[in-house]
Amino acid sequence: MKVKITELNKLIVKVLSSKYYSDSQAKEIAEVLLYAEMTGKNTQGFLKLMGTEPIQNIKPKYVPKIVKKTKVSSLIDGGGSPGILVSRMATKAVIDKCKENGFAIVGTKNTFSSTGVIGFYAGEIAKNGFIGIVMAGSPGSVAPFGGIDPLFGTNPMAFGFPTNDWPIILDSATAAITWYGLVRAKALGQKIPTGVAIDSEGNLTTDPEKAMQGAILPFDKSYKGSGLSMVVEILTGPLVEAIYPGSEEGGWGNLFIAIDPDLLTTRDKFKKGSSLLINTIKKSRRAKGHDIIHIPGWSGLGKKDKAQRAGEIEIEESLYKELKIIGGLK
Amino acid sequence: MKVKITELNKLIVKVLSSKYYSDSQAKEIAEVLLYAEMTGKNTQGFLKLMGTEPIQNIKPKYVPKIVKKTKVSSLIDGGGSPGILVSRMATKAVIDKCKENGFAIVGTKNTFSSTGVIGFYAGEIAKNGFIGIVMAGSPGSVAPFGGIDPLFGTNPMAFGFPTNDWPIILDSATAAITWYGLVRAKALGQKIPTGVAIDSEGNLTTDPEKAMQGAILPFDKSYKGSGLSMVVEILTGPLVEAIYPGSEEGGWGNLFIAIDPDLLTTRDKFKKGSSLLINTIKKSRRAKGHDIIHIPGWSGLGKKDKAQRAGEIEIEESLYKELKIIGGLK
Repeated sequence: MKVKITELNKLIVKVLSSKYYSDSQAKEIAEVLLYAEMTGKNTQGFLKLMGTEPIQNIKPKYVPKIVKKTKVSSLIDGGGSPGILVSRMATKAVIDKCKENGFAIVGTKNTFSSTGVIGFYAGEIAKNGFIGIVMAGSPGSVAPFGGIDPLFGTNPMAFGFPTNDWPIILDSATAAITWYGLVRAKALGQKIPTGVAIDSEGNLTTDPEKAMQGAILPFDKSYKGSGLSMVVEILTGPLVEAIYPGSEEGGWGNLFIAIDPDLLTTRDKFKKGSSLLINTIKKSRRAKGHDIIHIPGWSGLGKKDKAQRAGEIEIEESLYKELKIIGGLK
Repeated sequence: MKVKITELNKLIVKVLSSKYYSDSQAKEIAEVLLYAEMTGKNTQGFLKLMGTEPIQNIKPKYVPKIVKKTKVSSLIDGGGSPGILVSRMATKAVIDKCKENGFAIVGTKNTFSSTGVIGFYAGEIAKNGFIGIVMAGSPGSVAPFGGIDPLFGTNPMAFGFPTNDWPIILDSATAAITWYGLVRAKALGQKIPTGVAIDSEGNLTTDPEKAMQGAILPFDKSYKGSGLSMVVEILTGPLVEAIYPGSEEGGWGNLFIAIDPDLLTTRDKFKKGSSLLINTIKKSRRAKGHDIIHIPGWSGLGKKDKAQRAGEIEIEESLYKELKIIGGLK
């Protein structure tokens, strides 16, 4: 069904501000969930208000606090606040510090659950004219290449680049399927594709439940993807004092980096160059069966643009009904 | 045949210092070539002193100069000096600046040809206790996913992490095969694997010559690998004012980043954590057919360690003979 974006936003904010979060905190979380809905990553959308651990029911243990800081860095202890809320704090901090110093790095630990679409934060950094790099850690569910134990998280990495058009936003899990991909397939009684996961004994499986007891494979099913997953594991684990294989401390961890292109060139030249690169790609020849060469992030930004122009988006009717009930509407 | 490392080193230095490079410059280049030989990446080794464009015969246009700098950054114009020589300058600069500021970023442009094994530079940064990120641009030879024109370079990225053991060094091309892989197959009259390259019309090919006229595919043959290749393209192109699709200026570009873990945690905790992560991976269960779960870089560092203990390495007899002739020995 079609729903007005303003109405959906109001409802999400109502749900989020019902217990533990202020109106402005609720709005910050809602913006990221709506971004996910509008860019087509709806598994990271208002579904997070449903299920067994809805965000609005999570009581933070303490207010997020900065536990270490320098001019160019800070480490935020999230105190059990939602990953999205702490990620927004981190994104603001990294942008502010980058404005002053040309570079900044902010880590977070002890957040509750996932950060949602990390491309959102990389995009916010890019909107400010900086190069954004964002990585998100999560509990072990992916086997390193050559192994069968679920040691690494699905470990997405995102890069955001300012251009004279839309930003380039690469947002990509280093796993062959996301954890939610398994949850969803299980809930719907569906199989998962062959070759993306193994059971607890290391045999390939298409059964999502067996995969959840086993492990997901790296996205390329090989050592490069496994290596990149390990890179994210280190940068969102030991570097930010969050959890990683071998350590139980620190909870979920994330990393946010901002780099001012002005350190090496000028912001204008950089944006012009990025746009020229995009246009050169767009003008190049297509492979058979491809109408378009995708610029990272542009497919989602196109959907978002369309939704915003129309003022409404298409969502699953049953889910919207459930959200209304959660929000105390009939 | 087995050759003494000291002898091979002496011969490489002799060749390199014969025309345009000082003894100390020759030693710096030789160290990187020897690292490649010892870690098993011999396509990046002393082969670079042979063929149609041997390093020692390249006359730099001018001495490398810093064209932009801040406390945390510099952009080096290589002036046509060898990529390896300029990369060593960049690595030293990024380490020195990181020591003072906790972070540093150094770009290079206008270098002659490739940087050799970029894992070497990431490893040097890691040896100093910092996290190293190194990316190397190269002329267009890879098609973006959905396209068939060779727009991106083979664009390797390397990450180096200090530990209490050997550093973790992920050094990985974002292309399915390296350019040299094509050159070598052509020279030997061999075919290349199916699915790594296309001809000039976009059809899959196993003929290396057709692939050279066509394009290499991203390493995962999909959009994630293509996206990562584009990330390297931007960071070694527009960001450092080097060449990229749509621009002909600036020559080959590279990027070097160093981050002090002390910004977010302590160096000791970080190294301890990285080692704990390694040990946890090593203790985990193996997949069928795998005796070992590879820690990125350790296979090469193991070979290097063995060679250094023995004081000698195995190299191709015919190549060694050729090198001796180049070096003016019988």
